[in-house]
Amino acid sequence: MRIVEVSPRDGLQNEKTPIPTDQKARLILNLVQSGLVEVEVGSFVAPQWVPQLADIRELWECIHQQPFSSNLLYSALVPNEKGHARAIELGVSRIALFTAASDAFTLKNINMTIEQSLLGFESIIQTHRQKFSNSFVRGYVSTIFECPYAGRITPRAVRTVIDKLLEMGVDEVSLGDTTGIGCPVETRALINELQGIPKEKVAWHFHDTRGTAIANVSAALDAGFSVFDASAGGLGGCPYAKGAGGNLATEDLIYFLERSGVPTGVDLDLLSRATLEILQTLGKLPTAKAQLASLASSE
Amino acid sequence: MRIVEVSPRDGLQNEKTPIPTDQKARLILNLVQSGLVEVEVGSFVAPQWVPQLADIRELWECIHQQPFSSNLLYSALVPNEKGHARAIELGVSRIALFTAASDAFTLKNINMTIEQSLLGFESIIQTHRQKFSNSFVRGYVSTIFECPYAGRITPRAVRTVIDKLLEMGVDEVSLGDTTGIGCPVETRALINELQGIPKEKVAWHFHDTRGTAIANVSAALDAGFSVFDASAGGLGGCPYAKGAGGNLATEDLIYFLERSGVPTGVDLDLLSRATLEILQTLGKLPTAKAQLASLASSE
Repeated sequence: MRIVEVSPRDGLQNEKTPIPTDQKARLILNLVQSGLVEVEVGSFVAPQWVPQLADIRELWECIHQQPFSSNLLYSALVPNEKGHARAIELGVSRIALFTAASDAFTLKNINMTIEQSLLGFESIIQTHRQKFSNSFVRGYVSTIFECPYAGRITPRAVRTVIDKLLEMGVDEVSLGDTTGIGCPVETRALINELQGIPKEKVAWHFHDTRGTAIANVSAALDAGFSVFDASAGGLGGCPYAKGAGGNLATEDLIYFLERSGVPTGVDLDLLSRATLEILQTLGKLPTAKAQLASLASSE
Repeated sequence: MRIVEVSPRDGLQNEKTPIPTDQKARLILNLVQSGLVEVEVGSFVAPQWVPQLADIRELWECIHQQPFSSNLLYSALVPNEKGHARAIELGVSRIALFTAASDAFTLKNINMTIEQSLLGFESIIQTHRQKFSNSFVRGYVSTIFECPYAGRITPRAVRTVIDKLLEMGVDEVSLGDTTGIGCPVETRALINELQGIPKEKVAWHFHDTRGTAIANVSAALDAGFSVFDASAGGLGGCPYAKGAGGNLATEDLIYFLERSGVPTGVDLDLLSRATLEILQTLGKLPTAKAQLASLASSE
């Protein structure tokens, strides 16, 4: 079982409250102290686009001052070659690239078709493999069920993008239900389309907008998948939500897995405290989940 | 598929903001106009215990002034014989009785053992059958997975209570995950213990405290069950929650069922509007779910 914590990047990127670097570092420290090993800590997106993530260099250096950081798998999003140059400079061996299963979505978000985005990946991956012996490249595939601009997406369209990414040599794909519409029926339909792909190369990135994230995790788990993305407190993923998050909350994922007999190595009490702290920093109401998990574990 | 809407009773009973009778009636009207048919509208609990529900008589009369009310299945909770006398007086033919699978829980909540609570039911059910030709009696079984005072509850203990209720002649049992701890693994274990019981006599009452409600519904649906309780906006079920509810939100249930190819007859747009209105009345943040569902459907 691998859990990829995305709150420092995916969770914070849409937050208006500027979070100082040391508080981000503290969030990450709290998360890894709870037992999480893989954390996407930021993005090399141009600072003017996402000011919240502009301090990636300082943050990266800060978290690598921890004595145990060599045991951890920190990664960062790389949106383009320019960002990649900065990532290399900083020694970021684990990177994530971003595309989608819908041209309408990539055009709106990164001003490229899917095909054009993939073309850009080729040279990044090549350069990256040359620079790092311990390189790891993740390929995000967004809008796996629905595109906010183009509507329903077929499993076939998702498979096509996955195949291209794997052919290019990404180590894993992360399949994102961007609009949070997925139910097990859609997850199973997509799983049917994934035959022949090694399951350990597929991460699932569910949103909990409509309360279906854990049901989707359950369906993927039943089918033998074992890599899941999550975000502390459900941060990110849903620009409309005030009290509640849009991403699958890490504390819910851990709770579900442990309860289902799948060991995660994560201490739910510590994780809940980490979650409460960042929600308070952001001036958000603690989710019932974080609050209750914390209460339950402190009994 | 039957959906039992419990927000007017289970959702409002712990709310401190007093809701005037006409606003409760409006909530119920909004809910049934969205297509919901079965609504638990209140409780005959002694007014001093739950002042919020003290206006059951006025509310009952108010909602029965609607011309189409004869097509609807309104019910109310009956906590004891005294409450039952008031219910009979008002002509409430559909009632719900309350017990649990944990003595510690019934002792704390109704000052009786399970056995004592069941003894009380016998005469209520008898009287009720005599009074109403169209009687319907539901038996709530709380703490099906865990008791907040006694810890884990075995499926066997739940089955014992169910058997006694069915022998007494209740028309259905509603199985409640009171503390919201359930995962599909627990739901499936309990389902295994329910062999021989007609599935249409079993309603599931899940809480979404830790994001697992829909996963549990999915597991029960896969096993052939078709009656689910839910509460608009997730109201109720979780005294700790401020922004988010503890009960399974009706809008999430409807979304999930419709998406899974199960027709519900409920208009998600109208339901979301009903939900937003009551959340606003209560001064609660609209859940992301209600907000998004409403946004999506108004596009």
